[in-house]
Amino acid sequence: MSAHHVIATYVIETSLPLQHAAEVLAGEQSTGTFVRVQRESDDVRARFAAQVESLQEIPLTGASPLPGAVGDPSGRRRAVLRLRFPLDNFGPSLPNLLAAVAGNLFEIKELAAVRLIDLDLPPAFGERYQGPRFGVAGTRRLMGATDGAMIGTIIKPSIGLTPAELAEVVGELADAGIDFIKDDELQGNGPSSPLSERVAAVMPVLHRHADRTGRMPMYAFNITDDIDRLEANHDLVVAAGGTCVMACVNLVGLAGLHFLSTHTAVPIHGHRTMFGAIGRSEQVGIGFRAWQKIARLSGADHLHTNGISNKFYETDDEVLDSIAAVREPLLGIAPTVPVLSSGQWGGLAHATYRAVGTTDLLVLAGGGIHGHPDGAAAGVSSMRDAWASAARGESVHDAVERSDALRRATEVFGPVRA
Amino acid sequence: MSAHHVIATYVIETSLPLQHAAEVLAGEQSTGTFVRVQRESDDVRARFAAQVESLQEIPLTGASPLPGAVGDPSGRRRAVLRLRFPLDNFGPSLPNLLAAVAGNLFEIKELAAVRLIDLDLPPAFGERYQGPRFGVAGTRRLMGATDGAMIGTIIKPSIGLTPAELAEVVGELADAGIDFIKDDELQGNGPSSPLSERVAAVMPVLHRHADRTGRMPMYAFNITDDIDRLEANHDLVVAAGGTCVMACVNLVGLAGLHFLSTHTAVPIHGHRTMFGAIGRSEQVGIGFRAWQKIARLSGADHLHTNGISNKFYETDDEVLDSIAAVREPLLGIAPTVPVLSSGQWGGLAHATYRAVGTTDLLVLAGGGIHGHPDGAAAGVSSMRDAWASAARGESVHDAVERSDALRRATEVFGPVRA
Repeated sequence: MSAHHVIATYVIETSLPLQHAAEVLAGEQSTGTFVRVQRESDDVRARFAAQVESLQEIPLTGASPLPGAVGDPSGRRRAVLRLRFPLDNFGPSLPNLLAAVAGNLFEIKELAAVRLIDLDLPPAFGERYQGPRFGVAGTRRLMGATDGAMIGTIIKPSIGLTPAELAEVVGELADAGIDFIKDDELQGNGPSSPLSERVAAVMPVLHRHADRTGRMPMYAFNITDDIDRLEANHDLVVAAGGTCVMACVNLVGLAGLHFLSTHTAVPIHGHRTMFGAIGRSEQVGIGFRAWQKIARLSGADHLHTNGISNKFYETDDEVLDSIAAVREPLLGIAPTVPVLSSGQWGGLAHATYRAVGTTDLLVLAGGGIHGHPDGAAAGVSSMRDAWASAARGESVHDAVERSDALRRATEVFGPVRA
Repeated sequence: MSAHHVIATYVIETSLPLQHAAEVLAGEQSTGTFVRVQRESDDVRARFAAQVESLQEIPLTGASPLPGAVGDPSGRRRAVLRLRFPLDNFGPSLPNLLAAVAGNLFEIKELAAVRLIDLDLPPAFGERYQGPRFGVAGTRRLMGATDGAMIGTIIKPSIGLTPAELAEVVGELADAGIDFIKDDELQGNGPSSPLSERVAAVMPVLHRHADRTGRMPMYAFNITDDIDRLEANHDLVVAAGGTCVMACVNLVGLAGLHFLSTHTAVPIHGHRTMFGAIGRSEQVGIGFRAWQKIARLSGADHLHTNGISNKFYETDDEVLDSIAAVREPLLGIAPTVPVLSSGQWGGLAHATYRAVGTTDLLVLAGGGIHGHPDGAAAGVSSMRDAWASAARGESVHDAVERSDALRRATEVFGPVRA
């Protein structure tokens, strides 16, 4: 593709002729309006107008039209629209790009659905935005996990533990052989367990463990907060020897993530909370494939994708497409680690591995580890045994036969996914 | 309400019993899960669990259920749900608040619709977040507009003007007697008209105008960009004598807006572009009433609300509710100026004024000024005459009779709204 253009791909619905609706969208997002104003010369249009690159009709889904859409709803048609924007309209600035490709267009009344599903960006964005500073390789190095799926967990209960109780839980998980532990996204910097006290409680436990075993699990402290507190929160974690910070991407903003990434000394664990607000509707918003490109360019070393058989709304196909999207090369930046979570346990390893073909994944199990009938150490073993078996090309039934921990897990979390 | 709690109001739909779905939501967003985990004591639940404050069934709207919702869609019910969150769960941090009230909940499969529509915040948020630094009073002072509706316009074409052409347009608008001019949100910092060149071209024109007339129109330079460029962009505007900066709130992020507000020396013009991605669906996302509270606390001196008879999807009732929302007192912070735009012209002044009862508004007309048959000066006069007449309690027909400029406007933009 051209080095001087961005291609944005949308799903749209309209009761107007498709080509006309596409041109309304292109006009609104570039040279302005169908009514020509003074000084809007042919030259201005030629240089700055967004162009319809392709428009392909697809079947309606049965979802109802967006509020305020004009025209007869029964005459709606749905299409995939690719629009071509001159890079010069915004330059390689992600916030200014979004004004063009994801700005006022969601409010256009000629559209009964309008959803940004993909972005093809020219190299200039890869030159300005460094992407992950650590990515897969840096994460593996820091957690001492040279191969295999990286196994992690989330502190539960989400909130309410005192720092002393948290330290106890972390000690148990470290002893259980976990690679990675994270704060819940609900655990920010509240008065009952402030970040500074969590760091002070957790890091000595991890250091003692590392002194004893030579390996320190990575703990992702949730440092999400106002922008002007991110650096201090980050510095507090790093000063104590922490090896990861977690940021809720949509709460600090994609721009806030990029700000953090230009200062970070450790990997950024990118949580996608609030993504459903822009991503869940079939009719409006931004799809994960488009969103994750901005998040990766903005520096997410880890990025939540959900996992198969999860407890949220996404289908396995959607989740697998998200994991594949995060693993696709992007403008030469380092690879981001997909983070699989929600309802994960060992019995899902083989089905997941067969679909994604890699163990460069961070697989988080909450109940699948904390809730194992023989305790957290058996929970970690069940996950590790399952993923190693999957990577060896065995069947999940082989794995259950060989691993006591996995077999016991099936008694609580089963059946396995073949 | 309690100083120690936040009340979040949602519209939900579910095929499960309403009370059960409400409790799933409350659980997911506080102490975690319906399966009790170790250390989740009764005391933890009592202190940290979100509670159902009220749950009131309302009629279905006919909108289809969200993807992935479980249960029989024909058995769905819709309700307004108020949830009560302990402030201690997150403290008075807006990003951490959002993790609780607007985080993973949008992905819950037990919910066929889930939309955050309002937030009641305790005083602690008003203590930590200063809100607008200038607001209505500071804006009026800086533009020398002591009373009446503030009349503004948007540079058109949106993009494509050279800095020299932009300076020409600004000169014409200043001579026309305008109070306020803004960059289009599509005009960021692209190579064809960089911010520094726009500032260098526009400010001398405004200074010459001020020297001649004693009054300088406010120009909102769009400084939207990466967070670590916001300060430099702001400083460039202020160093040249500029009196306003514009930020696209959703593109720098609400947290980015707050970051800017802690540094700004001039009012922040808050553009809502991309709001449709989270706000347009009836079934998911965040309503304007909830969103604008965060934006105002984060420091928006001006905030786009849309106007009646606009070219986008919102109804007049929705727009008027947005304007009313922005004008409601909020935790003692200074009042934000509602910005009415899109399809605005003088013939809408009386209907708008009758509904909102104030002229503490910034009313932006693009075509309504640039496209007036007798030119921009007549366009500004038509707007000013109409708003002054409305504020005096006259009818719009009186106004048309008395004002040549407004009568001529009706020939192009009419009919008026009574």
